[in-house]
Amino acid sequence: MNLSKNLIRAVIAALLLIPGQALAQETPEFASFADTAYIFNTLLFLIGGFLVMWMAAGFTMLEAGLVRTKNVAMQCTKNIALYSIAGLMYWAVGYNLMYGIDAGGVIGSFAVWAPGDPATSDGSYASASDWFFQMVFAATTASIVSGTIAERIKLWPFLIFTVILTGIIYPIQGSWEWGTGWLDARGFSDFAGSTLVHSTGGWAALAGALILGPRMGKYPKGGGIHPFPGSSLPLATLGTFVLWLGWFGFNGASQLAMGTIADANAVAIIFTNTNTAAAAGAVAALLLTQLMYKKVDLTLVLNGALAGLVSITAEPLTPGMGQAALIGAVGGIIVVFAVPMLDKFKIDDVVGAIPVHLMAGIWGTMIVPWTHAPEDGVTYLEQAIGVVSIGAFVFTASAILWFVLKLTIGIRVSPEEEMMGLDKAELGLEAYPEFGQGSQRV
Amino acid sequence: MNLSKNLIRAVIAALLLIPGQALAQETPEFASFADTAYIFNTLLFLIGGFLVMWMAAGFTMLEAGLVRTKNVAMQCTKNIALYSIAGLMYWAVGYNLMYGIDAGGVIGSFAVWAPGDPATSDGSYASASDWFFQMVFAATTASIVSGTIAERIKLWPFLIFTVILTGIIYPIQGSWEWGTGWLDARGFSDFAGSTLVHSTGGWAALAGALILGPRMGKYPKGGGIHPFPGSSLPLATLGTFVLWLGWFGFNGASQLAMGTIADANAVAIIFTNTNTAAAAGAVAALLLTQLMYKKVDLTLVLNGALAGLVSITAEPLTPGMGQAALIGAVGGIIVVFAVPMLDKFKIDDVVGAIPVHLMAGIWGTMIVPWTHAPEDGVTYLEQAIGVVSIGAFVFTASAILWFVLKLTIGIRVSPEEEMMGLDKAELGLEAYPEFGQGSQRV
Amino acid sequence: MNLSKNLIRAVIAALLLIPGQALAQETPEFASFADTAYIFNTLLFLIGGFLVMWMAAGFTMLEAGLVRTKNVAMQCTKNIALYSIAGLMYWAVGYNLMYGIDAGGVIGSFAVWAPGDPATSDGSYASASDWFFQMVFAATTASIVSGTIAERIKLWPFLIFTVILTGIIYPIQGSWEWGTGWLDARGFSDFAGSTLVHSTGGWAALAGALILGPRMGKYPKGGGIHPFPGSSLPLATLGTFVLWLGWFGFNGASQLAMGTIADANAVAIIFTNTNTAAAAGAVAALLLTQLMYKKVDLTLVLNGALAGLVSITAEPLTPGMGQAALIGAVGGIIVVFAVPMLDKFKIDDVVGAIPVHLMAGIWGTMIVPWTHAPEDGVTYLEQAIGVVSIGAFVFTASAILWFVLKLTIGIRVSPEEEMMGLDKAELGLEAYPEFGQGSQRV
Repeated sequence: MNLSKNLIRAVIAALLLIPGQALAQETPEFASFADTAYIFNTLLFLIGGFLVMWMAAGFTMLEAGLVRTKNVAMQCTKNIALYSIAGLMYWAVGYNLMYGIDAGGVIGSFAVWAPGDPATSDGSYASASDWFFQMVFAATTASIVSGTIAERIKLWPFLIFTVILTGIIYPIQGSWEWGTGWLDARGFSDFAGSTLVHSTGGWAALAGALILGPRMGKYPKGGGIHPFPGSSLPLATLGTFVLWLGWFGFNGASQLAMGTIADANAVAIIFTNTNTAAAAGAVAALLLTQLMYKKVDLTLVLNGALAGLVSITAEPLTPGMGQAALIGAVGGIIVVFAVPMLDKFKIDDVVGAIPVHLMAGIWGTMIVPWTHAPEDGVTYLEQAIGVVSIGAFVFTASAILWFVLKLTIGIRVSPEEEMMGLDKAELGLEAYPEFGQGSQRV
Repeated sequence: MNLSKNLIRAVIAALLLIPGQALAQETPEFASFADTAYIFNTLLFLIGGFLVMWMAAGFTMLEAGLVRTKNVAMQCTKNIALYSIAGLMYWAVGYNLMYGIDAGGVIGSFAVWAPGDPATSDGSYASASDWFFQMVFAATTASIVSGTIAERIKLWPFLIFTVILTGIIYPIQGSWEWGTGWLDARGFSDFAGSTLVHSTGGWAALAGALILGPRMGKYPKGGGIHPFPGSSLPLATLGTFVLWLGWFGFNGASQLAMGTIADANAVAIIFTNTNTAAAAGAVAALLLTQLMYKKVDLTLVLNGALAGLVSITAEPLTPGMGQAALIGAVGGIIVVFAVPMLDKFKIDDVVGAIPVHLMAGIWGTMIVPWTHAPEDGVTYLEQAIGVVSIGAFVFTASAILWFVLKLTIGIRVSPEEEMMGLDKAELGLEAYPEFGQGSQRV
Repeated sequence: MNLSKNLIRAVIAALLLIPGQALAQETPEFASFADTAYIFNTLLFLIGGFLVMWMAAGFTMLEAGLVRTKNVAMQCTKNIALYSIAGLMYWAVGYNLMYGIDAGGVIGSFAVWAPGDPATSDGSYASASDWFFQMVFAATTASIVSGTIAERIKLWPFLIFTVILTGIIYPIQGSWEWGTGWLDARGFSDFAGSTLVHSTGGWAALAGALILGPRMGKYPKGGGIHPFPGSSLPLATLGTFVLWLGWFGFNGASQLAMGTIADANAVAIIFTNTNTAAAAGAVAALLLTQLMYKKVDLTLVLNGALAGLVSITAEPLTPGMGQAALIGAVGGIIVVFAVPMLDKFKIDDVVGAIPVHLMAGIWGTMIVPWTHAPEDGVTYLEQAIGVVSIGAFVFTASAILWFVLKLTIGIRVSPEEEMMGLDKAELGLEAYPEFGQGSQRV
């Protein structure tokens, strides 16, 4: 009894008292050339980090705009909670699991990350800036999941899933590539996370959508598909712009350095390619929906831009602008075809996250060798191995976790609660209490 | 037949295979003093660029908030599409047209810009960062147009206009000044684009408004003006704040360098003057609407802030803070008087973009000599020549283009479609499907 | 007569003609090591400054989302006006009052700040960048006030209060600590403004709420508390994310330097601690509202995150991550208990700004010594002296000012106007003219 008490005390003391400031003491009058590079690299992580943090708001607005009014407050709750949980879990265990591994390994340590621990930096940047940048990637992965399974999943099972996803599942597969693990050793290449972040979120979302089932009334017994229009298209558009902006940090700061001309040039090229792929994805969806449906579909244009962004994320540096445009345009085209395809299989993805993040993520990862010289050693085979192995792991682990949650605390609200909306049923409030309900209310 | 096939193949190959990475190879261990300046300059372009990119979201929210609900999704569609089109057109032709010219000339080359092409840099910054920063200015110009002619123009003619505006019209007049063309040779001065960006967007919008005519019911036959209140003033306010934020990048990074103390000081002064002019524009509109109408008009306060920003854009560096405040305040005053004046002439400008961007843009450009010493060689005459020549070119080119579009595919929706709203008529959806329609619905 | 005319002319000339550019002339070819530090420091202020400026939009969205629809446009008006007023007042008098003081003093000079005046810099950063960064802090203080006293205060008295708050009250108490005044001399420590900014805003808000009284119907005569649900929870959530993002600038750039490795490390640690405290505050409110009310309360989760941010603001550098989490979590807990407590005392705080900014601000300030070594000389006693003296001054000065306004022009709208809503009554418009009024309309 005393022993366990003392152990708990020791752990708490360790958690609390690892000092931040102590790790950064000597202050020379002015920075040397090496120091200047260190500061630039740190600054890149911090700017990139706050831009990616901002993507959490983008996902929130996108999802709040695409669900029905009766579930809007719940999407807001889930999104601010998942970002918060990611920030705590990636500190408590995720970061060390992902980066505390041996070269070629499959898993790191379970230690709590200490702020500014020099051991987590190669000495060319502030280790805390790297932690911050990596943490927001873990949060992004969780953001992707919340959209797909919206409007029917209970709050708490979703949050528990987020705890495991950001603390365990994401870091383990992330360690395989970015933690110098076995996929990295084989030659797999994923610059900023088409597979490690976006497909991972997409696989977790797909597992959830399959186990949870579609929303009531989405696929009526008599056949056909019942559209549930989003409650606020301007908020969805705002969310897309926020994500687009954040992506400059997501891809640009994944260069991981800005202390030399070569690195600065690289970051600049990544910005232009990232923007071009997004623009091409949007324009491709614009043209294709006009051709196919005789009407432009705003939601698909937004998702087309996002798919362009996901597609270029696996390699935003080596493509020429024309290549970037083509990679992004294919992403936009994938979305236009994949959204109705998912409906055909009765997989109910509320915001289109599976086409955007999973399918365009696979496309982006598989096309990486196209823009690499053979001597770079990036092959279609190794890309496929990375896509499949990460997909298999994340999908399986997520499915098991969803099942366990389903069998224990349950993951789905009752039909009455779903009809009433999660805002009233689970939170006891309304997102827009004063706005009357129009004709399309479902 | 074979020849044209081969030609097409060659063009496609050229477009696709101009490599990005290849242009940035040698990596010294640490950056020299010259390299440090290069990195700072590049960073300024990238930060400025993402802030101006964010302005696209600001225009979207401003316009979505100021149109009626039945046209909100269309404004969102137009804005994400125009930003995407600008990104592609400025790569395909705009940048070279604007910057590939001889000193004193009037037009550049039609070549496709290659990412990171060192020829587009003087060696003191990453050329891709400059392209990114210039591209978002082209997009801003197009954003200005979409607001004025909202609620009645068809989607596709607007997008075709955007293609030509961002690919041809904007770059040609831009080359005259920023591309070392003939206006630059004469001594015209427009620091960050009161005329080159804002008036240009304003002239294109004015031409569109005149040719398109006012919205149905805006100016009833019996006389008077029918107000069409905006659907969401918080979104309009959000958009204004986004634009204000983005303007620090717009003006600040137009210093084009941050690698010396002098440049860093200049960027800082530009930030303070930009903020002060906006604040003064808002306060001027606040006081003036209270005095004139006995009630503060939120929309005019928002536009007052924006007019303050446009006014200081032609010269945000040389004014003292009091001068900046005065320049911005006059901008705000212009808006308060110009909005009803346009209505008098039955020019229907949905969001007030002509007062804000065209009129305050002219004011800002004309007042530049006030804050320059005579030896700087900035004269009221040359400023007027710049304003008039760019105005004449942009207005004429835009008017011709709008006419051609009107005579061919048509630019205006039918009265039935206008009544129904563009969202339902052209896109087949609603921006807010669940929100009931209140008493003021028009 | 002539004399006073000439005096006025001289003052106007001085205000207008202090040149910005003239203060930054010599341009060496490349920056030295000292110059590089100068540029990094300046850049930190500018990035931090635009992030904190963005917080003005965050407060606007938070407040627009938490008031009823009939008062939304008024909150937008007040927020853009207060940010503008702060920008002008802090130039006209605030900055010199705050920083133009002698060491250990209590008040500075009333001179107008000149852009780029080297006297306001120690030579290690652009003075204009520091002014910009300090100005947005003054604006933040005013933003805090507007939320608490929403839905019943008249526009103009609020704006007059803002003039005095940002021009006089905030700078005087700010000078005591950040202007090397008497509190600084005693050893009081407030890194980024838990007390100087957040509690100050909170005290001013509390004084206003007490003198203004609660909204009609909030505390019915029969007893109990009438909830007035916010009109748009997604906008409130967006506002919270904006504030969270802006806080990286608020706390991070309060390191005031980034030109050495030690400073860069410090900024990075501040980012991680700031994020961790916010995350812990949100999670604490999430868990606590579930435990106490069996339902998660989104508004309290949002305020929990904000309280976490306020709590860590007094010292975001020295805590370890666990300490940051604990400090933030306590902030979140404070909010959950303080919101109903205020209702018990019939203090009507529309958005919860008093719990978030005042109470968590006191907590954050008082806990600073915990993460300092004894040799740092930060004591609980001196922290308490700072909290009490600033609280006493700000509360008293604010109360006097509110009283004077009440006795002269009046501060509260009539019951009819309050019932009708401030948008229609004072501004003559509606924030959402087309959205029907649902069942919960109050």
